[in-house]
Amino acid sequence: MKAEIISVGTELLLGQIANTDAQYISQCLSEIGIGVYFHTAVGDNWERIRLAAEIADSRSDILIFTGGLGPTVDDITKEVVCEYLGLKTVVHKKSYDRLCDRFAKMNRTVTENNLKQILFPEEAVVLDNDCGTAPGMYYERNGKIYIALPGPPFELKTMFSRYAMPLLRRKSSKIIKSRVLRIYGIGESAMENKVRDILDSQTNPTIAPLLGNGDVTLRITAMSDNENDAAKIIAPVETCLRERLGSYVYGTDNDTPESVLVDLLLKSGKTISAAESCTGGLIASRITDVPGASGVLKESFVTYSNEAKHKYLGVKECTLQEYGAVSEQTALEMAYGLIMNTGCDVAISVTGIAGPGGGTPEKPVGLVYTGTALKTENGIVTNVRQNNFVGTRDKIKFNAATTAIIDAVNMIKKQDER
Amino acid sequence: MKAEIISVGTELLLGQIANTDAQYISQCLSEIGIGVYFHTAVGDNWERIRLAAEIADSRSDILIFTGGLGPTVDDITKEVVCEYLGLKTVVHKKSYDRLCDRFAKMNRTVTENNLKQILFPEEAVVLDNDCGTAPGMYYERNGKIYIALPGPPFELKTMFSRYAMPLLRRKSSKIIKSRVLRIYGIGESAMENKVRDILDSQTNPTIAPLLGNGDVTLRITAMSDNENDAAKIIAPVETCLRERLGSYVYGTDNDTPESVLVDLLLKSGKTISAAESCTGGLIASRITDVPGASGVLKESFVTYSNEAKHKYLGVKECTLQEYGAVSEQTALEMAYGLIMNTGCDVAISVTGIAGPGGGTPEKPVGLVYTGTALKTENGIVTNVRQNNFVGTRDKIKFNAATTAIIDAVNMIKKQDER
Repeated sequence: MKAEIISVGTELLLGQIANTDAQYISQCLSEIGIGVYFHTAVGDNWERIRLAAEIADSRSDILIFTGGLGPTVDDITKEVVCEYLGLKTVVHKKSYDRLCDRFAKMNRTVTENNLKQILFPEEAVVLDNDCGTAPGMYYERNGKIYIALPGPPFELKTMFSRYAMPLLRRKSSKIIKSRVLRIYGIGESAMENKVRDILDSQTNPTIAPLLGNGDVTLRITAMSDNENDAAKIIAPVETCLRERLGSYVYGTDNDTPESVLVDLLLKSGKTISAAESCTGGLIASRITDVPGASGVLKESFVTYSNEAKHKYLGVKECTLQEYGAVSEQTALEMAYGLIMNTGCDVAISVTGIAGPGGGTPEKPVGLVYTGTALKTENGIVTNVRQNNFVGTRDKIKFNAATTAIIDAVNMIKKQDER
Repeated sequence: MKAEIISVGTELLLGQIANTDAQYISQCLSEIGIGVYFHTAVGDNWERIRLAAEIADSRSDILIFTGGLGPTVDDITKEVVCEYLGLKTVVHKKSYDRLCDRFAKMNRTVTENNLKQILFPEEAVVLDNDCGTAPGMYYERNGKIYIALPGPPFELKTMFSRYAMPLLRRKSSKIIKSRVLRIYGIGESAMENKVRDILDSQTNPTIAPLLGNGDVTLRITAMSDNENDAAKIIAPVETCLRERLGSYVYGTDNDTPESVLVDLLLKSGKTISAAESCTGGLIASRITDVPGASGVLKESFVTYSNEAKHKYLGVKECTLQEYGAVSEQTALEMAYGLIMNTGCDVAISVTGIAGPGGGTPEKPVGLVYTGTALKTENGIVTNVRQNNFVGTRDKIKFNAATTAIIDAVNMIKKQDER
């Protein structure tokens, strides 16, 4: 069955809120194997809502309207839908009682405009609103389904999951399951080239590449009768993709570079610290975004000035003079010195030029050295990478942090494998 | 002119992302007096994108497509639009050169599939992508405008504001000018109560309160024939609002707490440093987000462990034992010790429980002490604030950082006034 979501509300068209209602419903439907083919957002206007309903009705089997069920004169969605379907509305007794109850509890009286919220066609199923005053409706005719839900996200989510989903689930015998591979260090197009034949040869599961927040993802989506079968459809394709992409795959599903790093450190009982110049604390902040980070990060440093690099990290003055603060040598000494000075197991260092000022022909904006050091039985292992990032200051900071975090992940993994 | 946004991407219909692109564009267009009448989201499917284009073309004057400009086989938006309009595409030389440059900088080679991104109709204006590889396009015919923009929000925002908005602004005879007052330290409804009568009495300018990113904003919007007249309409209302809200107004327009702080420090020639426990580097990172921050921040510390608080900040062991790491006393000694140890002029300290774990009945999740210290002619002035934040770990970190930064701003301002 093809579903379509029609969201009603001028606030959407003014950009005052994002359409998270459509997102939520789409997620839920995709999980039960009902494909959503269109989202439409339209203002609180009778003709345009009706036009949207007509268009949707001409191409979809399930029409889900969100918003415009409230008490104000702006709220006309249900009225338009019922007029369109040729349905008369009457007071819904149970909803009327609930409304009176609710208002009595709040010491308020039910006003005239509140009554329009509880007018429904006798043929429709009324969906209770456990979080607000406007009930929703579910109506089925000739194999088509029409649903109207309130706009406030919390009311919508509760009503949809409790009362609409059970009705819709009976309409679908399939489930859809997704697995996301998170990839870093390779561009979207280069990644696609590596796996092009796998991408092209699949129909179930389907595989979709997507640009993420500085990373790239591959989403493997299987449709099947149940969770188990879907997992079996996904597994061999995931293996195939992993073989091609190797260590570019740093995580899955909701992983972030920092969550992967913290997990790895917690598992191996290691501590980490960062010595940050141009990332300015972003690495430490991202690591400490992960719950439980206090178990692996005890202290961390922002060392913008040469003095700080020398004082806290033991970077030699002659290194700073000869090679400059933005250099492979400085990045190396920062990471190495951090382990020596703090006793942490893993050290990350970053030094570079985030811009917009401060660039020179030899050392342009975007030049960033990321360093990693790791305490091992045989001494301290170090690694430095030269990066040339492009973009704004924010973006350069973010990508430098991601690169440094992923490098640390890979270094720890490599060591753990020995 | 009537505008419509057609967002292309199966990820939208699967609910994997919210349609923030449509939201952003809608905001921008509403500011220049262009009404958005519909949003449509559609998957990466030739026939359905074409259908959406036809419907939009039948009812709107400005069609803005988002997403599907990338290098992969899924990315077909531009191809569909050009086929629909009967336009042939050729290699756009300037974009080709930019692409090669960009890839050379990253030491990557341009692959075959990248080339499709730089094919454009000769009749179209190509919109540079300063943050990614896929340029956009702007095409005008018979009074109708067709725009295609890349999907990644960061690329879209930059391209739309820099290159599409100036072209669209010429289509609107009225100008809309906004002034945003940024407010912190008072809730949205309490703020609204203070200025309710001003809000209600205005028609031009309009005043809209909006919940921001941890702060609250009041947007004063005037419609007029020119910039000057609009400014004159806004000025007296801004004065009125400022009188009511006093020091709750910390900035205007695109100010952030950190940009206000860095400006203030640069003007007064002061340096700053932070000692962060539960914010984990976020304060330093936000300060260093501001270009020119290297002039005011030389070093900064994440001191998660008691040892680090003692070693780098001189927090007394007896303080930590008697009052605990999360206490007014510790926050105070952290800020004070930071000035003593580093010689900076202004110190910010934060210690608290960001959760989700680590809370106790006496010290629950969300309890955060923020401290400020300032070097003056008469010695070091300090201040500590107890905060009880609610929400997720991210949110608690963010609000703690904002509070600490604003407190530093207010302390410096107060001192400078003497």
